[in-house]
This record gives sequence, structure tokens and C-alpha cells, in this order.
Amino acid sequence: MNSTEIQLKSRPAGIPTTDDFETVTISLNEISEGDILVKNLWMSVDPYMRGRMIDRESYIPPFQVGKALEGGAIGEVIESKNPAFPVGSHVSSMMGWRSHFVSNGEGLTLLPRTELPLQSFLGIMGMPGMTAWAGLFRVAELKPTDTVFVSAASGAVGSVACQIAKMHGCKVIGSVGSDEKASLLKELGVDAVINYKTTENLSQALAEVAPEGIDVYFENVGGEHLEAALNNMNQNGRIAVCGLISQYNATEPQPGPSNLSLIIIKRLKMQGFIVFDHWDHYGEFAKQMGSWIAEDKIKWEETVYKGLEQAPDAFIGLFEGKNKGKMLVKL
Amino acid sequence: MNSTEIQLKSRPAGIPTTDDFETVTISLNEISEGDILVKNLWMSVDPYMRGRMIDRESYIPPFQVGKALEGGAIGEVIESKNPAFPVGSHVSSMMGWRSHFVSNGEGLTLLPRTELPLQSFLGIMGMPGMTAWAGLFRVAELKPTDTVFVSAASGAVGSVACQIAKMHGCKVIGSVGSDEKASLLKELGVDAVINYKTTENLSQALAEVAPEGIDVYFENVGGEHLEAALNNMNQNGRIAVCGLISQYNATEPQPGPSNLSLIIIKRLKMQGFIVFDHWDHYGEFAKQMGSWIAEDKIKWEETVYKGLEQAPDAFIGLFEGKNKGKMLVKL
Repeated sequence: MNSTEIQLKSRPAGIPTTDDFETVTISLNEISEGDILVKNLWMSVDPYMRGRMIDRESYIPPFQVGKALEGGAIGEVIESKNPAFPVGSHVSSMMGWRSHFVSNGEGLTLLPRTELPLQSFLGIMGMPGMTAWAGLFRVAELKPTDTVFVSAASGAVGSVACQIAKMHGCKVIGSVGSDEKASLLKELGVDAVINYKTTENLSQALAEVAPEGIDVYFENVGGEHLEAALNNMNQNGRIAVCGLISQYNATEPQPGPSNLSLIIIKRLKMQGFIVFDHWDHYGEFAKQMGSWIAEDKIKWEETVYKGLEQAPDAFIGLFEGKNKGKMLVKL
Repeated sequence: MNSTEIQLKSRPAGIPTTDDFETVTISLNEISEGDILVKNLWMSVDPYMRGRMIDRESYIPPFQVGKALEGGAIGEVIESKNPAFPVGSHVSSMMGWRSHFVSNGEGLTLLPRTELPLQSFLGIMGMPGMTAWAGLFRVAELKPTDTVFVSAASGAVGSVACQIAKMHGCKVIGSVGSDEKASLLKELGVDAVINYKTTENLSQALAEVAPEGIDVYFENVGGEHLEAALNNMNQNGRIAVCGLISQYNATEPQPGPSNLSLIIIKRLKMQGFIVFDHWDHYGEFAKQMGSWIAEDKIKWEETVYKGLEQAPDAFIGLFEGKNKGKMLVKL
């Protein structure tokens, strides 16, 4: 049995290019007792993967040049010598970027049989949805009276964060990079949307749509966004730092905001988080999100690239704003 | 009755100079029923006062040009028509930078009769001591197993923070601006002291003295110090942002640290605080600090300038590293 996999060919300098990736066919061993053979159906590309392409110590080891990349994936069990994973069952894994893989089941999650589309477990019901939920409730301690600012607000995490905050009773402001994305967010009920690409002064634009100030900033972007948010934060405001996508492809260190003293003046709390640290709350999240979906209270978008060979383009597209909602690859 | 007071003559650009201050004699009204006349004996100069010289919205209104400055002071009641404040009693107030003042007692605190020197209520028993205590316990959630880094470690706040953390069982590292201050801190039992002025690479110096990493950073300085601390923080580390003295005299916005993404990777919490928000815990602090002093477990230094007319020099000296421990003016 062969598997096609995408390997890291070289560590990107700046925005990755397709030359940094290589498609390789490898042969898989026959499965042994306790093993399963999985055929991937969907895989996820996420901004955090850019960080793993850098050779540095982090919360997760860096990708290795000449080895297959990794990431969230949904697959079907097509051969099984493990009764916990019968043929035909669906599993989520971190074994993305490849067509097939052999596993003893370790680190795999059997997906429940639901009416939800399989790929939702890579999006709204998966890591991005859980990230939005954990950031708002477990990091930013969201209150119904808060005014919330979400950057990259039409992305996989941002669009869910916006809707959760709205359901919680908050006023929500989002920033996006196109008028099309802005319209999309407006349809989701977001109170005000700023297209940062056509806005001259982000800080002033925020002040105009949130004259009462911002209580919670869900940070996905960094740079000018963070500086603008700091300028508009209210006393005792909370910043949940989920991502800093504006920095990920920087080839030189990018200076931080020049208004950090506002952290003291306004007694702000700025806290970084990684969704995996909150994974023991996944059941709580899934129950809540499942009922929001069942009640048709939450919507999600997907941008789908077709074919494993499109995965590098899908990944690179994340940094070019090509996705609305969750960026996925359908194998 | 006349009072000599120091007024803000002009808003400083960069490091304040004596030209930004003016000594003025004013005449005070006779005291009415309920009033007292106070003669100041000691006054405090503190780095935060630099922020009040800027005309901007903050947690406390800016100083006004042509008006007397304000700040912590200890005085003696020399005339009284208010039974709560008999002649001869000592009061602490925010009416520093002047020789005498009339008050109806509002905002004044009658000092307890203790064996402590009066001026300790401007230092170890007052705002700076309380700042160290609140920052460590109420913001940074100090644990005995923490390795703690304190910047401006020989200052009024820093030197107390170092000693409290040591008593709590922590390993403590301090940064100072001279070898003399370093010796002083060593005598206080601090585990390692870095003279940042003679250190080429602060981040590397920190890594050498704290190879196990830093759990709590008590931030008084900002700039390079914050960047070095971020590089050395452990996972789930906490940064209590008390002050950013390296930024206070900047004439242009100073960029923040270029390694802010470590806040995510290391899941750091960075929180600004103002001691006044924690003042309802003063009783708890004073009881604890009083017993540490009684048991001779804590020491403090004072740098004293003599005469009200020296107050501007004392204040300016804060930004030139001229103080060991609390900077005071004895009237």
C-alpha cells in the first residue's frame, strides 16, 4: 500500500512558497495486530503550522525538513486489526498532509455518528471552534456586558468567536481584510466591521464604532491591531492572545506596540493561550456547540481546496486572506 | 501663614530639568471649624509622577502647569479645629511638594503611634511596600517554588519585592544599574544580581543565572528588560507590570518587545496594576509587613534629600539611578 505525503522541503523565509514543499510517495507496511489503515478524507491547514516550520523550541516540536508535515485530519478506517476502530469508522488525527497512514490508534479520536458533516470536526466542532470558546470563556472571562473586538474576524476562529460573543449578549466588532468578508460578518450579526485594509487609522476607526471602549480583545493578528486595541481598551480589559498572524512570516523581529504602558494605566490583562491546554474541557464545549448548531444559532463558512497536492496552496492562502471561515483540503 | 510650594512650571520634554519646576510662596487662609493646619515633615518622589506631568487621560488627572505638584507626604498637625486630628498628631496625605497646607481631614490618614520612623509610611509601610506586596501576591500569584526576576531591584518597590519573594521561598534575581546597588542586594539575600549597565546581553545573563527559567517577572523597567524576561519566562509564567521607567522620559513612542509571540508559545499572563486598586487590602499588608519588620526579617534603604527646594533634584535623580531604596525629601 502506498501513501502520498507532503514533506517540508525547506524552511520558508518569509511567506512560504510551493517550493518549500515536496510531494512524495512512500510505501506503507502491512498492518499488524492492533493496527488500522486510515484513508484521509479531509485535512486542515492552520496559521499555527507556520510556527512549526521554524526550527525553535515551542509548545510542539518543529517540523523536520525531509519529513511529512502534520496537522488535523479526518479519515476513514479502511483496514482494521483493532476492534476499537472498525472498518468504515471515521477518525480524527494529527496525521494530515498525507493520503493514508497506519496507526495503532494512539492519539486518534473515533468520531461520533452525527448528522454534522465530517469536516466540521476540523472546524466549528474541532480545534478552531474550541479555540474561540476557550479564548472567550476560559481566558478572557467573557461577560454579557462586554464590548468585544475580534481581529481576523472572518477566519475559522474569529467567525466563531464573534458569534459566541453575540450569543452571550456582547457588542461585537470585527476586523477583516475585504469588503466581501465584512458583508459576511454583518450577516452573522456582528455589530460593526472594519476593513483594516481600507482604513487609514485603525485606532480611530475602532474608537468610532466602540465609543464606549473595548473590554475584551480576541487577538489573532498582532502589530497595528494590537496597538489600536490597546488604545481603545477599557480599564480592567482583557486581551486573549490566540495568534499573531501578521508576524508569522516576518523575516526580521517585528517591534511590539509602542503603547504598552497602557497595560498599567488601564490595568489590562494580556494572556496567551494554546487550545490544547484546555482540551479537558472539550466535552463541555462540544455539548454547547452541538446544541447551538442543532438550534441553528451558529453558522460557519468553509473554503475548500481539492486534492492533497493543493494543500501547500491552501496553506499559503491563509496568509493571503484567501479563506472565508475554515480553510480545508478535501482529499 | 505662608506655605512654600513647588509648582509645575512647564511640561517636561524628555528627562525633567529644574527649569520645569518653580518654587512659589502662597499665603494660607486661617483655618475654619473642622480644619487643620499641617506642616509637612517628609515628602515622597516617585517615578509614576512623571506620567502625571503629561497632559493625558490616565488613572489620575495630570498635574496642571502653574499649580502645585502632589504626592505622598507625612506631616504634623500644628493647628487644629478638628478633634479627629489633634495638634501634634501625624498624618499622611497626597499633599506633598509644599511646606504647609490646610485640610478638613478628607483624604488624610492619621498615622498610628509606632516605633517605626515616620518616613517609613512613605516607603516600606506605605505605597512602595504595598506595591511590592500587591504585585507579587495579588497580581503574580506568587508561589514558593517560583523563580522571580525583579527589575529596578534596589529601588523602593524592587528591594521590597526581592525580600518578600525570598521570604516566600523563591529564588530571586534582581537587575540594578550599579555594582554598589548589586552589593546591597546581595546583602539582602538576593540569589543573583545583574548590573544591566555593564551586561552586554541581558537575556543571556538572565539565562545564565536562571537556567531553570523565570516564573514571575516583577516589571519596573520595560524595553530591553521586558524582552529579556520574555525570552527567559517559563510556561505559564506571570508578568506583573508595575512600571516602565525606561519609557517615562521618551520623547517619541518606544517600540515594544519584538518577541511578544512568546506570550502565546509560553502561555504567559502579563498584567498591569495600580496599587490604589488594592488599597482595601492595606490592613492585611500592614499587619504582615509590621511583623516582618518587628522580627527584623526585612530591611530598607532610604536616600534623603534635605529641604523642599531639593525636591525637583530628588525627583530627577530617580531617572538617573541616584536612589538606593526609597527616595525621600526631608523638609
